[in-house]
Amino acid sequence: MAEKKFVEEITPMEEDFAQWYTDIVKKAELIEYTSVKGCLVIRPYAYAVWENIQKILDGRFKETGHENVCMPMFIPESLLQKEKDHVEGFAPEVAWVTMGGSEPLEDRLCVRPTSETLFCEHYANIIHSYRDLPKLYNQWVSVVRWEKTTRPFLRTREFLWQEGHTIHATAQEAIDETVQMLNIYADFCEKSLAIPVLKGRKTESDKFAGAEATYAIEALMHDGKALQAGTSHYFGDGFAKAFDITYTNKENKKVNPFQTSWGVTTRLIGAIIMTHGDNRGLVLPPDVAPVQAVIIPIAQHKEGVLERCGALKEELLKAGIRVKLDDSDMSAGWKFSEYEMKGVPVRIELGPRDIEAGNCVIVSRVTGEKTVVSLENIGETVKEALVKAHDDMFARALANREAHTYRCDTLEEIASALAEKGDGFVYAPWCGDEECEDEVKAKAGVGSRCIYDEISVEGKKCVCCGKEAKHNVVWAKAY
Amino acid sequence: MAEKKFVEEITPMEEDFAQWYTDIVKKAELIEYTSVKGCLVIRPYAYAVWENIQKILDGRFKETGHENVCMPMFIPESLLQKEKDHVEGFAPEVAWVTMGGSEPLEDRLCVRPTSETLFCEHYANIIHSYRDLPKLYNQWVSVVRWEKTTRPFLRTREFLWQEGHTIHATAQEAIDETVQMLNIYADFCEKSLAIPVLKGRKTESDKFAGAEATYAIEALMHDGKALQAGTSHYFGDGFAKAFDITYTNKENKKVNPFQTSWGVTTRLIGAIIMTHGDNRGLVLPPDVAPVQAVIIPIAQHKEGVLERCGALKEELLKAGIRVKLDDSDMSAGWKFSEYEMKGVPVRIELGPRDIEAGNCVIVSRVTGEKTVVSLENIGETVKEALVKAHDDMFARALANREAHTYRCDTLEEIASALAEKGDGFVYAPWCGDEECEDEVKAKAGVGSRCIYDEISVEGKKCVCCGKEAKHNVVWAKAY
Repeated sequence: MAEKKFVEEITPMEEDFAQWYTDIVKKAELIEYTSVKGCLVIRPYAYAVWENIQKILDGRFKETGHENVCMPMFIPESLLQKEKDHVEGFAPEVAWVTMGGSEPLEDRLCVRPTSETLFCEHYANIIHSYRDLPKLYNQWVSVVRWEKTTRPFLRTREFLWQEGHTIHATAQEAIDETVQMLNIYADFCEKSLAIPVLKGRKTESDKFAGAEATYAIEALMHDGKALQAGTSHYFGDGFAKAFDITYTNKENKKVNPFQTSWGVTTRLIGAIIMTHGDNRGLVLPPDVAPVQAVIIPIAQHKEGVLERCGALKEELLKAGIRVKLDDSDMSAGWKFSEYEMKGVPVRIELGPRDIEAGNCVIVSRVTGEKTVVSLENIGETVKEALVKAHDDMFARALANREAHTYRCDTLEEIASALAEKGDGFVYAPWCGDEECEDEVKAKAGVGSRCIYDEISVEGKKCVCCGKEAKHNVVWAKAY
Repeated sequence: MAEKKFVEEITPMEEDFAQWYTDIVKKAELIEYTSVKGCLVIRPYAYAVWENIQKILDGRFKETGHENVCMPMFIPESLLQKEKDHVEGFAPEVAWVTMGGSEPLEDRLCVRPTSETLFCEHYANIIHSYRDLPKLYNQWVSVVRWEKTTRPFLRTREFLWQEGHTIHATAQEAIDETVQMLNIYADFCEKSLAIPVLKGRKTESDKFAGAEATYAIEALMHDGKALQAGTSHYFGDGFAKAFDITYTNKENKKVNPFQTSWGVTTRLIGAIIMTHGDNRGLVLPPDVAPVQAVIIPIAQHKEGVLERCGALKEELLKAGIRVKLDDSDMSAGWKFSEYEMKGVPVRIELGPRDIEAGNCVIVSRVTGEKTVVSLENIGETVKEALVKAHDDMFARALANREAHTYRCDTLEEIASALAEKGDGFVYAPWCGDEECEDEVKAKAGVGSRCIYDEISVEGKKCVCCGKEAKHNVVWAKAY
């Protein structure tokens, strides 16, 4: 049977999580490889998810006063080198353009790995007075980082993202912006992607190259590994000094402004797959699913079935639901499998008997639950089913995270928690020394994901050296 | 006075059209230069115009069944070389990536100048059966062409565009697609950008590298020069053969499919500037203007003025109008100049006397006409003013094109028409020989823009050699 065949095509996640992931990426038609390693085709179904992500986030950015802009993709080597930490962080992994047509370039150009240097050059040109501040800019582009090991959505040599770059008169304004954007990311992940996230600050060793402070949202994947899902950086006036960005303040003095940057990437699609997917395929959060509900006609050759399905589709479209009617000549069983693989949140079955009874069957992709519902007021019913699908997804992901969150006070406790209950988030106190951070990684196999000061460490000792703890840190294996 | 100062900052177009263009691009804050020649910052105001263009066109593409996708930006040299004409056309002007991090690449990569080769590689991977056809794909990305001479929007080394790439079972389907997209472009230019365009076919010498036929829309700029505003190509099965794309048809035979591609670019913003702009600055078509109406308070320190302006803004927002209220402390005169420079189609002035009388003043950016209108039902009134602004812009552009369109039967007639009435579109019959095409260019200074068979050439002789004419051709100087 076609249904079985489909399911057999994916490796169960318990057997081989990495292979399960790769299988879904291919079978759900999200990605296709090209002849360049790490440069992939984002196929229409995945791109439509990205478009929905963009639409929601772009709305949030604009509501909070941000404007979109578009910088060039090329950064001259001399410009990249202006901020010392920044160039050290990025130069080893950039792609270099050395020829234009048949002529070698004088100053070779790197394909942007991130655009701080371009924004700084621009800001130096356009900012003169306090009246020119703040600038709250963002761009939706692709960037290139020449990674050695690559993985669809998680780590690719080219990826899509948005990068916000803002510049402010005061440090406090810039810090507020950094926090605001972190909160928008966290809220988006939870409300639109049904992915619970922790918000925290990165340790010194894990900061963005050139930042004073890096904040991140961290999500726990189904296999107990952490995924950094978004970052927000506070730069102080370091970049402004390196790039000689000054403005005349109200007291008529030339001073440096303060900057931030923040970004999320197509990695979010990887987070969706690994948070919500199961052994039947993808499960998409309703807010970003290209198709929120699919109508499968039952016994579609029977008189009146396709017509009634068509009318149902129109009604759902009017209710604002992204709906698809599959009236192809494939079997109903094949279609069930196909849209389970594609992660469509709600399936609607409608056949002759349902029509006679004035009903249809709604099936949740998340729980598999089947419900017979009236065709009257079906728009509202399906909307409720979509809200429930989101809530079920979030609850399931949160329960998984909680089942895999361990509070430990010693390295031994960490080791036994991970051995007994599997990988997950480890909360443990830390003295603040980089040596201890490295030692936890070496001995317990988990790295620091973020400093999470919501939990007090009063009276606690560093999990590694036993000295007084300064911070609670969330530790985990990570993507 | 601030108002005067502003106007003085732009060179009048009659004096120096190229400088007038550059002045507008800078003063209206559309573009800023970077340290890389031909790679420019598209500033928020211009990018917002592009976003509006994208939104309308993307809607038209999706209505006609197209899906968005995203290909990598890098093309391996070996892949680029697969279609002979194509590589010959593009190789001289591509940027080459030769290093990834600190290591030289084995197969150097070009930054896409266009993506036919990538789409072909992908289609070869995903198309197997007639059930897989057609694929109607599009992407919104930037491309790079290493041009020697560059000009903001018109010719830049990197530019934004959309590129549609479709693949069909039959030649007829592909031809229909090519024509459909040309018609969508033409309709968009006329209905949304208020730019009249001619639709025609390119001569052999002017075809896209690798195409069987190239169709284009051509617009006439204010200085009498032509601008190619969009192209749509029919490829036959040439690319499919070169890239070994085959499918099994219903008769179970392996055959090649047929392809098209089509694109418009940020050049459209250049077309808007040079079609509609005047000596006071930009004039934006209402459909794509980031701000459609600006409210300027008069005597804004007087009690009640700002409040009433705020209420007016809310009312216009509710009516679906993109409106801005400028309540800054600059003078009203400065604001008038500023929004004229920015090309906001409608200005609304509201002061104490207007409020008392229940009126406001509406000023058209296009005609300068001032109208006192009632504040009652103001949403509808402003919407009508926007429709009128569009119609006035289109009528003015069309009148300009008609005043600069000449029908000529000899090279002498061409020369005298251009000398007496200025540059423009020349309609003249052509025998079809490339030598004659070249000779017209050499002798009359105008190149063939497109073959325009709407006008019959029965009984006509070639404007150059005097042999029987095969086509009417539109000739012009061009950007």
